Amino acid sequence: MTQVEVGRGLEALFKPRSIAIVGASEDVTKIGGRPLQFLQKFGYAGKIYPINRKAGTVQSLPAFASVTELPEAPELAVVAVPPDSVLDAVKECAGRGVRAAVILTAGFSEMGEKGSALQAEIGAVARSTGMRIVGPNCLGAVGVPDKAIATFSVALESGLPAAGHVGIVSQSGNLGSYTMRLASERGIGISRLLTTGNECDVDISDAIASLALDAGTSVILCCMETCRNAAKLQQAMELAREAGKPLVVLKVGVSEAGSAAAASHTGALAGSDAVFDTVLRNGGAIRVPSIEQLLEVGHALSVVGPARMPKANTVAVLTASGGFGVLLADAASAQGLALPKLKQETQDRVTAVVPFASPSNPVDMTAQVSSRPEVLAKVLNAVAEDSTCAALILQSANAFHLPRLRDVFLAALEQVRKDHPNRLIILCCRAPDDVRARLNAMGYPTVEGIDAACSTLAALVRFGSRSAPSPTGGGLGRGHEREALSHDAFATEASAKAALAAAGLPILKETIATSRDAALAAARDIGFPLVLKIVSPDIAHKTEVGGVVVGVRSEAQLREEYDALLSRVQQKAPKARISGVLVAQMAQGGTELILGSKKDPVFGPVIMVGLGGIFAEVFRDVALQVAPVSEAQALDMLRSLKSFPLLDGARGRPKADVAAAAKAVAALSRFAARHAEDVAEIDVNPLVVLDAGQGAFALDALLVPEQKGLQ
Amino acid sequence: MTQVEVGRGLEALFKPRSIAIVGASEDVTKIGGRPLQFLQKFGYAGKIYPINRKAGTVQSLPAFASVTELPEAPELAVVAVPPDSVLDAVKECAGRGVRAAVILTAGFSEMGEKGSALQAEIGAVARSTGMRIVGPNCLGAVGVPDKAIATFSVALESGLPAAGHVGIVSQSGNLGSYTMRLASERGIGISRLLTTGNECDVDISDAIASLALDAGTSVILCCMETCRNAAKLQQAMELAREAGKPLVVLKVGVSEAGSAAAASHTGALAGSDAVFDTVLRNGGAIRVPSIEQLLEVGHALSVVGPARMPKANTVAVLTASGGFGVLLADAASAQGLALPKLKQETQDRVTAVVPFASPSNPVDMTAQVSSRPEVLAKVLNAVAEDSTCAALILQSANAFHLPRLRDVFLAALEQVRKDHPNRLIILCCRAPDDVRARLNAMGYPTVEGIDAACSTLAALVRFGSRSAPSPTGGGLGRGHEREALSHDAFATEASAKAALAAAGLPILKETIATSRDAALAAARDIGFPLVLKIVSPDIAHKTEVGGVVVGVRSEAQLREEYDALLSRVQQKAPKARISGVLVAQMAQGGTELILGSKKDPVFGPVIMVGLGGIFAEVFRDVALQVAPVSEAQALDMLRSLKSFPLLDGARGRPKADVAAAAKAVAALSRFAARHAEDVAEIDVNPLVVLDAGQGAFALDALLVPEQKGLQ
Repeated sequence: MTQVEVGRGLEALFKPRSIAIVGASEDVTKIGGRPLQFLQKFGYAGKIYPINRKAGTVQSLPAFASVTELPEAPELAVVAVPPDSVLDAVKECAGRGVRAAVILTAGFSEMGEKGSALQAEIGAVARSTGMRIVGPNCLGAVGVPDKAIATFSVALESGLPAAGHVGIVSQSGNLGSYTMRLASERGIGISRLLTTGNECDVDISDAIASLALDAGTSVILCCMETCRNAAKLQQAMELAREAGKPLVVLKVGVSEAGSAAAASHTGALAGSDAVFDTVLRNGGAIRVPSIEQLLEVGHALSVVGPARMPKANTVAVLTASGGFGVLLADAASAQGLALPKLKQETQDRVTAVVPFASPSNPVDMTAQVSSRPEVLAKVLNAVAEDSTCAALILQSANAFHLPRLRDVFLAALEQVRKDHPNRLIILCCRAPDDVRARLNAMGYPTVEGIDAACSTLAALVRFGSRSAPSPTGGGLGRGHEREALSHDAFATEASAKAALAAAGLPILKETIATSRDAALAAARDIGFPLVLKIVSPDIAHKTEVGGVVVGVRSEAQLREEYDALLSRVQQKAPKARISGVLVAQMAQGGTELILGSKKDPVFGPVIMVGLGGIFAEVFRDVALQVAPVSEAQALDMLRSLKSFPLLDGARGRPKADVAAAAKAVAALSRFAARHAEDVAEIDVNPLVVLDAGQGAFALDALLVPEQKGLQ
Repeated sequence: MTQVEVGRGLEALFKPRSIAIVGASEDVTKIGGRPLQFLQKFGYAGKIYPINRKAGTVQSLPAFASVTELPEAPELAVVAVPPDSVLDAVKECAGRGVRAAVILTAGFSEMGEKGSALQAEIGAVARSTGMRIVGPNCLGAVGVPDKAIATFSVALESGLPAAGHVGIVSQSGNLGSYTMRLASERGIGISRLLTTGNECDVDISDAIASLALDAGTSVILCCMETCRNAAKLQQAMELAREAGKPLVVLKVGVSEAGSAAAASHTGALAGSDAVFDTVLRNGGAIRVPSIEQLLEVGHALSVVGPARMPKANTVAVLTASGGFGVLLADAASAQGLALPKLKQETQDRVTAVVPFASPSNPVDMTAQVSSRPEVLAKVLNAVAEDSTCAALILQSANAFHLPRLRDVFLAALEQVRKDHPNRLIILCCRAPDDVRARLNAMGYPTVEGIDAACSTLAALVRFGSRSAPSPTGGGLGRGHEREALSHDAFATEASAKAALAAAGLPILKETIATSRDAALAAARDIGFPLVLKIVSPDIAHKTEVGGVVVGVRSEAQLREEYDALLSRVQQKAPKARISGVLVAQMAQGGTELILGSKKDPVFGPVIMVGLGGIFAEVFRDVALQVAPVSEAQALDMLRSLKSFPLLDGARGRPKADVAAAAKAVAALSRFAARHAEDVAEIDVNPLVVLDAGQGAFALDALLVPEQKGLQ
């Protein structure tokens, strides 16, 4: 896989010195008319070149018959001609030296095979000429500081958003522009919007990367439906991480109904949501479940600088009412936040100010804070000076609407901000717009809902306490070696296990015997007890033909069982080719895991591990990770299982050899990554994990070959 | 337990012909000043009597020195005197024939023992005189249609809410009045508000009942922190159910942190949230997790009549954008709603109108619906006429803000409402207040958020599809027989099992043998294999002293094991009194359940059942129900277990005798209810469930006696 320069060459979208509108229209309700109208209305300072076959003037500007006739090469071209004219227009733009083109026109891959073929030709122009192409079937781009408008979105009808440091990227044009409008109404300043539509060239990863590289953007909000290139996504997330910019992702098409709807809407493969979740977490993105949370978290991040990011999940809650304290404690707990008791010293300071306060946490300042609002600063300072909690939430149902309270509260909050510049304090309140703006300017995020305040804080905690990137893990696109696997490996259990054993997955001693005497010799070498299993490329389900015997404990028993096994098999599967009988050491005790790998359509081989039997099946208690994983990541996977206590000594069991299990998971993951081209699926069932220090061993394994040509 | 007349005599709170303000003040910032101000400001039509020692006039009204001096008995008294004058004031009111008193004054049970004692005396006045008392430490009551204001809530400073059919009750005054204000801002008309505070007499159940009985209230919103009388709560819920009025409950103090905060705030016992949840579900209440949802569901219910309540969880989603369709499908799925495909005929009708629409579900009407808004009525009618879905959600990001679209949309929605008067259609949209009011008046709930729209619909489905009340189940306060349990029952496993067996919980054959010969005789009667267990009132953990032997398969083995068992026990527990050796039939195969009962501080004996071993412990996979339960309810409990498939033939197992298990659960629950006074806890571990038709048997049991005097 070649390294892609993700996000390359997109500056022309957001601050071009000149823009051509190809298919410019006099009619401002048309997609060729609106961008022109917006550019003039909002005062874009660069050159605007309407392109229209009839030339003349369009919307009072002199028009040109084609891009080739322009006096200079425009940096950006907005293409709004009918679908069958787009390819020619794009070629012309590339020929004229345009750096980036936005194709607003729809009617391509979303309309079936013919449209897909045409779209592929357009994408090829980008690859052969280096001109970047956004779309087709997209809502384009907006560079707010430069008033560069390459969109026909109705979201701009009510005005250009205020400029700021939050950038928005989206595959869906509607979601992207709606997010921008809501964000703007929420008081969030916007840097850039980029919607990628059908993604013939520029994809969502490029879009993320372009914001990661933009000095004017410090927070990235992303609506994502799918990922067409896993390696690029990982690189884009790394760029955001390196730049210290929070990347907040709303993944849509999560449910079965949703991903079916997404597939019918974009034709894009959804991939498994659990795997997506893993990839986003690996990349340090903050995932949110709804557009409402995307906005709340975006708001908070736009107000809170990196210095105030909470490093732990502890929160102190302050209210003027016990009832609200209880509600907030519930909501915080539901979001995984903890409310530890404040220090006794802090509690004493609180009750010194408000004698009947509940000073523990939540702190109930009682209605006193309404009749004597000056107590707020004292209580807030006391709690802010207590290091027990990583963040504070101050809730007030009324204060900012009542002039008398408002002014005292504002003064107190101003003072507290000065005294504690790096303290994260979220205000859970309703307030008139102007008051809210003042609070935000002081660095206080303002969130109306109680649940919303807590889920926003939880998102900041996920960002503030995320772990460093794992140097060995999530090796998407890291150029690890691919290696062909011998066809023989797929033949039988024994050959599959041998191939896995060679890759570092331990198996118990075993030998294929082709005679009773050879079996007896093997038994002397391996030791009792033993398991016997038929070996045949024609028998998939060994137990169904009586081809497995467990618990062979003596030479006499071995003799007897060996013959009986072969005669049973011969009777039940007379035509099967018999390669021999596997004589294998028998595991005693231990806990059974199931371990496997499957290929995700987006992210390639994905490793799955869970406890055997009903745990994985009935409780869906499995952990996933993109292959390959390090041993440390494998250990994290095991620890994340709900059933992990069963490996860790629950109910008086001995502790299992979890380290060996993690080693086995990592070995399997490397094997899966290395042989991704040949192997569609791997099942190790069971991997038996013995007591600590005793190891973990694959007792049975199956390799399913990739069906070449079907992918 | 005596039957309580829940909700009795509270009409005087909401439509009194006369109101006395005891402790009336000239100062409108005081709690004795505000109600007087509100009554006059909002135009209460009845007589107002300020009571103030100095007499004269208060806020321009002639005042009286005491209630006894009034020319008539006021129907309602609002008490706002200092804490130590409250008891006298209340007695005076009762003596004068006041029908209901609201005590706004704080400083009682929330302040410790002395306050509790005083509060108890006040409550006693209510019980001895029949005058109903609300509070103390409450925010009182508001009867909106009659402008009867018995509160000092700041929520009324911005005006009296518009009158309507939604009633609000709350233990927390702040939550109640905040809910009222937000509801009013949300356009919800209010009938009554009642906040119950410390509940010396009128409790939250009375409050619910008073609204259930009020012809002017059709929807009840409730904020609940605790329940002080389980039987009254159940009666109140029954009244609401009988009246066909939805009861929406926000339970606060759900999490550990929240209930700790609630306890420090009110001193009330929280009880188990899981049990609360069960009780609310049994009673047909709609539980919501946040104040935001309380309002959204309240809004929808205030707009949607009972005829439009959805009877199933199916929803058709219509949008103008594929991206929003995907978001809605995700959000609906997360709320347990299903999006079945529409009929082919319907899809054909949709594509006939909008050729490039996605017609399946979600229906993507595409941007066509913006450029040709007249298509909306046709598509909406087609989907409304399709019976596949119980409800529709129509999403529009922009339409109601753009005049051109708005008028066409309003006309279309008006027509659809006429054509389909009983169709539930939720609008997920933003709209200016006046447009929203028009939509609501047409019977369309309007919800802004995507998640909120789906969670609101899910709440309506829970109400619309709730089951009929179970005649035998949830027997709180149903006056079932209480019966004393012989002290002997607690002594040993054998005596506990005998007591349970007498109550209908099957056990296997067993006999206590006091000699080896008796054991042999018992074995001949019972048959092999057998289990032997030591019987001693002094030995709690039988296995620890070697007191259990399983798998005794012959007379010879029995002889040997009998002697060995006794000598082991004698060695390890030389001082224990030995009653004999239990000779018991041994169960073979089957699945082990754990079954038990524990007393909840609020709701009494609660039955718990789950699969044995790690399932209950590691996965917390247990079902709860308030005792007693019917066999049908017990079956529901078993079916609700995640691990139920293990009883139902998963992974090739034989189906277990689930009917027998349900019978056993019901028998145990009746036993627990009957002996609630004596028995604190019952553990049956395991209850082994054999294959279908073979029965279910308690293999071991423990009864823990109630510690009398400690409760």
